[in-house]
Amino acid sequence: MKFNDKTRQKIGIIGGGQLGKMMILEAKKMGFYVSILDPTEACPADSIADEHLIADFDDQQAIRELAQKSDLITYEFEHIGVEVLKELEAEGYKIYPTASSLEIIQNKYEQKTVLKKNGIAVPDFIKVESPADIKEAAKKFTYPLMLKSCTGGYDGKGNAVVKSEEEVESSFKELGAGSTPLMVEKYIPFKKEISIIAARGLTGEMEVYPAGENDHQDNILYETKVPAEISAELEEEAEEFAREVLEVFEGIGIFCVEMFVTEADELLINEIAPRPHNSGHYTIEGCVTSQFEQHVRAIAGLPLGDTALLRPSVMRNILGTGDQGKAEVVGLEQALAIEGVKVHVYQKTISRPGRKMGHLTVTAENLELAAKRALKASQLVEIKGEI
Amino acid sequence: MKFNDKTRQKIGIIGGGQLGKMMILEAKKMGFYVSILDPTEACPADSIADEHLIADFDDQQAIRELAQKSDLITYEFEHIGVEVLKELEAEGYKIYPTASSLEIIQNKYEQKTVLKKNGIAVPDFIKVESPADIKEAAKKFTYPLMLKSCTGGYDGKGNAVVKSEEEVESSFKELGAGSTPLMVEKYIPFKKEISIIAARGLTGEMEVYPAGENDHQDNILYETKVPAEISAELEEEAEEFAREVLEVFEGIGIFCVEMFVTEADELLINEIAPRPHNSGHYTIEGCVTSQFEQHVRAIAGLPLGDTALLRPSVMRNILGTGDQGKAEVVGLEQALAIEGVKVHVYQKTISRPGRKMGHLTVTAENLELAAKRALKASQLVEIKGEI
Repeated sequence: MKFNDKTRQKIGIIGGGQLGKMMILEAKKMGFYVSILDPTEACPADSIADEHLIADFDDQQAIRELAQKSDLITYEFEHIGVEVLKELEAEGYKIYPTASSLEIIQNKYEQKTVLKKNGIAVPDFIKVESPADIKEAAKKFTYPLMLKSCTGGYDGKGNAVVKSEEEVESSFKELGAGSTPLMVEKYIPFKKEISIIAARGLTGEMEVYPAGENDHQDNILYETKVPAEISAELEEEAEEFAREVLEVFEGIGIFCVEMFVTEADELLINEIAPRPHNSGHYTIEGCVTSQFEQHVRAIAGLPLGDTALLRPSVMRNILGTGDQGKAEVVGLEQALAIEGVKVHVYQKTISRPGRKMGHLTVTAENLELAAKRALKASQLVEIKGEI
Repeated sequence: MKFNDKTRQKIGIIGGGQLGKMMILEAKKMGFYVSILDPTEACPADSIADEHLIADFDDQQAIRELAQKSDLITYEFEHIGVEVLKELEAEGYKIYPTASSLEIIQNKYEQKTVLKKNGIAVPDFIKVESPADIKEAAKKFTYPLMLKSCTGGYDGKGNAVVKSEEEVESSFKELGAGSTPLMVEKYIPFKKEISIIAARGLTGEMEVYPAGENDHQDNILYETKVPAEISAELEEEAEEFAREVLEVFEGIGIFCVEMFVTEADELLINEIAPRPHNSGHYTIEGCVTSQFEQHVRAIAGLPLGDTALLRPSVMRNILGTGDQGKAEVVGLEQALAIEGVKVHVYQKTISRPGRKMGHLTVTAENLELAAKRALKASQLVEIKGEI
């Protein structure tokens, strides 16, 4: 082992957004040196990173430079060109999660194929290349159906619900008219969406967080409640699913496994994110070990921490309101006056309507109270653009 | 009010040690801009501060510069020349806690005099200027007695126990032979040492944390256990004492009130620190709101947060071992493998025997378990100097 003192390993993060920022806040507690690569000079992680390479995410030379000045590389979002990561890995650089697992997860069709092959329940899916293919798929899956870009989508971007044959052409065009590979998925009329944050260490050990119950609005997460209101059996099954997913992909670090709970109380995997996830932000205040600390522990080869929930927790996103412009936080005092409210401001210079500008978490003695306080706080605090 | 968005207030911290670092980690969650003043280039807070003025703490021009680039000034240790702070305050700069309260607290004789005048119980004390004065005081207080420098002491430095008349001369010399003002205090054969962390906001509102029970070794804190094993009455009395102290000094931000529990179960104030305190580090993992977040809330004019204890907590300091030299963390993996253990590494470049290099906190279902795990972890992790 090169490092007796593991805190001397320099960590490089591709991306300096809020996830990178929250990762650094935990890494710094333990004394790590952290560099980031991000094209935005004043990105959220900039002011607390030891070094910031200002470069585009597809700048292979810059990613190589980050690797050269770091002992291990991780990333806060999954849409990175894997070629350079594979090259670097072949040269002996440590990339966590590995480039090979990232490559599969990046492509939703490949991701689902691997899951299905390993006996993990996913909605039925099929690759499509043309409107004719979509109509053919509809014979099997029936309308409505989900049309998805296999690569590059996030926060609902790259997804379209096709309600009827009339919408096939327009949805096909909306998703690029075949410029990126497409797939069709059976539409699942789910009862609940849940997600499990789970971590796997360098030697395969795993720790799983309790399921969170997610609500989305316009395809963007707006609330996570923990514990999820599901049966103990389903909770156990969901946690087992997460373990299987991490095994299958040989995950290293934090993964998020999003699942549907169907009307028949069955679990189907919706999506996998190979990184700390918005639906795991509650762990900062709610759990003994936050997902960000856990990620740092995992990739640094340290033992994983306790994932126990300290108190019922509710997280709500703070999305930009008003105009596009300089971000201003309004109503913070009112929100913080509510018991147990923690507000995280990401320090994005520019606010845009719907942009993730911050989040708040409330922990309380019971979930109902936490949810009530979180709702109230989210009605009071706002991050808006000033022109 | 100048700031509608209070997160836009720039915070300046005099001192960039571990307290400054932990303050910044909380300030950054809420999106504050933070500058520090510290003579050490690679001080603990350096890598996460927005700006670092490298200057001595007695460099009045540098403190003025920090004030000019900040909207409010705070400090992580109390031994600063108050003159410049008073000047700045008179010019309209915001200094929290205020220079006038700092001035009194800095001088232990003045501090105790104010406390006594306000009816808050302190050990008997008297000012002394010579060995003859000390001997005279001994007639009243009897040996052993405490000889203390009125200013500048910390971690037991500046204190001496005078066991008998034979030790008067040597103790007098040890504490500077009158070069700094001295006082004698009645020696209190205490049952326990406890401390209360408490916060007072800009408009006088207060929040008090549960009492922590402290153990010192060689005058340096080595363990804080929370809740303190004291009666409910004593807990209430201690919390009330803390409130009174903050009222008396018109404190702003976090204060630590250290108290003795006497054999007769009476409380006597030992010392007051006008800042986040080592004995309050447990609040990071143990309480809903950490002392550092609370301090930021208080000085920024935000509502104070909930001080409830989430789980019984035990904090242990990690003091430098081995030689003076480049700091190396040893045994971190073994310590982190114990459930609920969090290790904070301060990132001090040089370790010296006995220097505060980090701390660890364990939260658990009960105090006994937390204490057992903390003890075990502290036997495993070490920060030592490499030559």
